[in-house]
Amino acid sequence: MAGSYSVIGLGSLPELHPGDNLPSLVVDAVAAEAGGLHGGDVVVVTQKVVSKAEARLVDLRSVTPSAFALSLAAELDKDPALLEVILSETRRIVRMDHNVFIVETHHGFICANAGVDRSNVPDDQVVALLPVDPDASARAIRTKLTARWPEAACAVIITDSFGRPWREGITEVAIGVSGLLPVETMRGQRDPYGYLLSSTDIAIADHLAAAAGLVMGKFDMVPAAVVRGVRFTPAEGTAQALLRPAERDLFR
Amino acid sequence: MAGSYSVIGLGSLPELHPGDNLPSLVVDAVAAEAGGLHGGDVVVVTQKVVSKAEARLVDLRSVTPSAFALSLAAELDKDPALLEVILSETRRIVRMDHNVFIVETHHGFICANAGVDRSNVPDDQVVALLPVDPDASARAIRTKLTARWPEAACAVIITDSFGRPWREGITEVAIGVSGLLPVETMRGQRDPYGYLLSSTDIAIADHLAAAAGLVMGKFDMVPAAVVRGVRFTPAEGTAQALLRPAERDLFR
Repeated sequence: MAGSYSVIGLGSLPELHPGDNLPSLVVDAVAAEAGGLHGGDVVVVTQKVVSKAEARLVDLRSVTPSAFALSLAAELDKDPALLEVILSETRRIVRMDHNVFIVETHHGFICANAGVDRSNVPDDQVVALLPVDPDASARAIRTKLTARWPEAACAVIITDSFGRPWREGITEVAIGVSGLLPVETMRGQRDPYGYLLSSTDIAIADHLAAAAGLVMGKFDMVPAAVVRGVRFTPAEGTAQALLRPAERDLFR
Repeated sequence: MAGSYSVIGLGSLPELHPGDNLPSLVVDAVAAEAGGLHGGDVVVVTQKVVSKAEARLVDLRSVTPSAFALSLAAELDKDPALLEVILSETRRIVRMDHNVFIVETHHGFICANAGVDRSNVPDDQVVALLPVDPDASARAIRTKLTARWPEAACAVIITDSFGRPWREGITEVAIGVSGLLPVETMRGQRDPYGYLLSSTDIAIADHLAAAAGLVMGKFDMVPAAVVRGVRFTPAEGTAQALLRPAERDLFR
């Protein structure tokens, strides 16, 4: 008998507003919908509710686009105010083409539009930015969970949906981590036949993000989930471990 | 209450050999470990067992490297016979650097070493190639599952572990699909706040592959899993839908 696990959507989280205590609301949802926290649970929360609670919202009507934003906006066929916000979140432009703007954020994530997003925000002139420090957001939620259920070691992942080269469709990935090693290194270990695995690192946090993503659909208003029964390596953890250093990335 | 689902590892599949009837063995494992097939189940099978059953194995001692393979082998610090096999699976070289060789396979997958892999094969001079037609491999398994459980509509996904640009660690992705739409198009739909989603396609098959990947570890000898309780759109499906056309890919 091999292992099995389950994923439980947390649909009872209310609409979030700036200043709401998201960690407490996550605790309530875990209590109400997952029978409390179990040891080894991974609580996964989408970026959008974190950003709302942390007031990472910008009203585009309040933004004055720079000359560069105006010029890019014409080139890319985008709203100049939106581009100004995207540029404020950008460390480096990776690729640009008609209506596609892929950048590296100040965190080091490479994604379209620096993660700035209009969807699932009540006012279509208000956009949501990524959390300033998604690891810290994850840590705050984990601290609250641990305070309520001190016996249950858990991990927390903050996710967003990113596109990727070569393959169609977005996938849910980890942008904040607390309580687990996000990349499991198999390097130097042997497979069951004795073959030395020379370069197998597994992005466990992104697998967990994707598993949770299957119940956190964009239309379902389910902004969080509990993944129960997956083995992981406990560690403080950081989503920075998921970012490939520039010198080892052939696609910069 | 939001949705929930479960993932059940199929650890009872035996070691596979060329000519084995994998679809029948999958049926047996689903019967033994998952209580039979339920409606809406997605059965996920790793490429390695498919390749073994389909005799997609090459003994490197039988390979004569070409002059080009010898030259590349010196450049990349790889075994010339292994490189010869990789080149036979390659349509186009995407990137090469010290010990990194990323190609487009004849199927159109972009991955390291054309998916040719030494791990989890009993003889370390024998390598496994990707299935010739992973969609057909998935279809054959699905046909057998449907014959045994005609009331239970199901889908089958064949997976492999691929690296990706920008982010560390491999993730499990779909390379063969039968019975579901692998990319769900949200384009033209509205989110719960009424905002028109202009470019949101979700790679549901890759989410399912990753979810299954959490029980199909490289050390666990668990080569398959059942994902139970996830909504998907029934369709014949093909993993080709997951491949971004060259003209829309900024990272060729």
